[in-house]
Amino acid sequence: MDRSPVPDIVIGRLPIYLRALKRLLSEGIEVTSSRELGRWLGISSAQIRKDLSHFGEFGKQGTGYHIGKLCGELEQILNVNREWPVALVGVGDLGRALAHYGGFSHRGFRIAQLFDNDPAKIGQKINELEIMPVNKMGNSIEEARIRVAMIATPADAAQEVADALVKAGIRAILNYAPIALIVPGDIRVQYIDPVIHLQRMTYYLEK
Amino acid sequence: MDRSPVPDIVIGRLPIYLRALKRLLSEGIEVTSSRELGRWLGISSAQIRKDLSHFGEFGKQGTGYHIGKLCGELEQILNVNREWPVALVGVGDLGRALAHYGGFSHRGFRIAQLFDNDPAKIGQKINELEIMPVNKMGNSIEEARIRVAMIATPADAAQEVADALVKAGIRAILNYAPIALIVPGDIRVQYIDPVIHLQRMTYYLEK
Repeated sequence: MDRSPVPDIVIGRLPIYLRALKRLLSEGIEVTSSRELGRWLGISSAQIRKDLSHFGEFGKQGTGYHIGKLCGELEQILNVNREWPVALVGVGDLGRALAHYGGFSHRGFRIAQLFDNDPAKIGQKINELEIMPVNKMGNSIEEARIRVAMIATPADAAQEVADALVKAGIRAILNYAPIALIVPGDIRVQYIDPVIHLQRMTYYLEK
Repeated sequence: MDRSPVPDIVIGRLPIYLRALKRLLSEGIEVTSSRELGRWLGISSAQIRKDLSHFGEFGKQGTGYHIGKLCGELEQILNVNREWPVALVGVGDLGRALAHYGGFSHRGFRIAQLFDNDPAKIGQKINELEIMPVNKMGNSIEEARIRVAMIATPADAAQEVADALVKAGIRAILNYAPIALIVPGDIRVQYIDPVIHLQRMTYYLEK
């Protein structure tokens, strides 16, 4: 077992393995191999074995992985064998879709607080959760000791929101606003911008 | 100028450079350096220079990049100096948010066709665009020669939709359904699943 820091690109693949394994499990499949998993994900079996070897010995040559057990191990590695409350800032079309999205629970997350700066939205409820004003965000997040947030505001507001989130104790931000955030080095940021993904693909298309 | 195939990870960074450069431009800034850009994006200046060197000579030592010109070059490299019509399949909460999203235009994309299988939604309009039944999808996409699609259906429907899209001539799929798609090797797929990004961050958080 390799004890050096695991490259972030490896960490980035673990949730993809976990998602695929849970799907197999939901289909009643209990054992798989790196070859089968790799074929399904378009990742080489050698890569999968190498990625997992950072964390210990999971499968046995010839017998494959016990999926339920491997899921449990991956959930523990990724710290999602618990439920993280998440603050969502910006309840426009996208924020609303995220607040309604049923795919967070059972995967380690629960949207716990909603914030917007539009007086017309404040006080409205989505899934029993009241939309709160952004000026109460800092205190509210601090009191609830929330560590994870999603930003779904327009680009112009995102940096200011990020600054306030970090000040309130947020350590990980998933940013949907199409802008690079400047945050202290110990704060994790991930980005979701559909255009970035689309442009990455059109490079390969014929003109 | 290096003529070997450019690694996909480099291609993946170009849209991020383009987005940042366009933002600088919108703020009236006309010249930047790899150092300034890198500081903003959290990417080393050496990395940026190396990435761009795959495509030619852009900046001059000491004078930096002319942002407007570099934007134009990047748009050309990424094939977004034109507008790609996009088919969107699945008009639930997320699909609706995507259909309303104003951030596609001016970045190379325009949602051109909407599809859903819910009779209650078919015929409804979003931004003047009528939601069409999924069973007309193949013909409609083929006739309009659309090459790019987004899937925002539930996970269970996504593979079937992807198969139909590929058959209709789609070459690039942005998949929001939380499931790995199996497609022919020459079809590009990118994934957006917020939980994958969240789990990648919780790895680093204290328990």
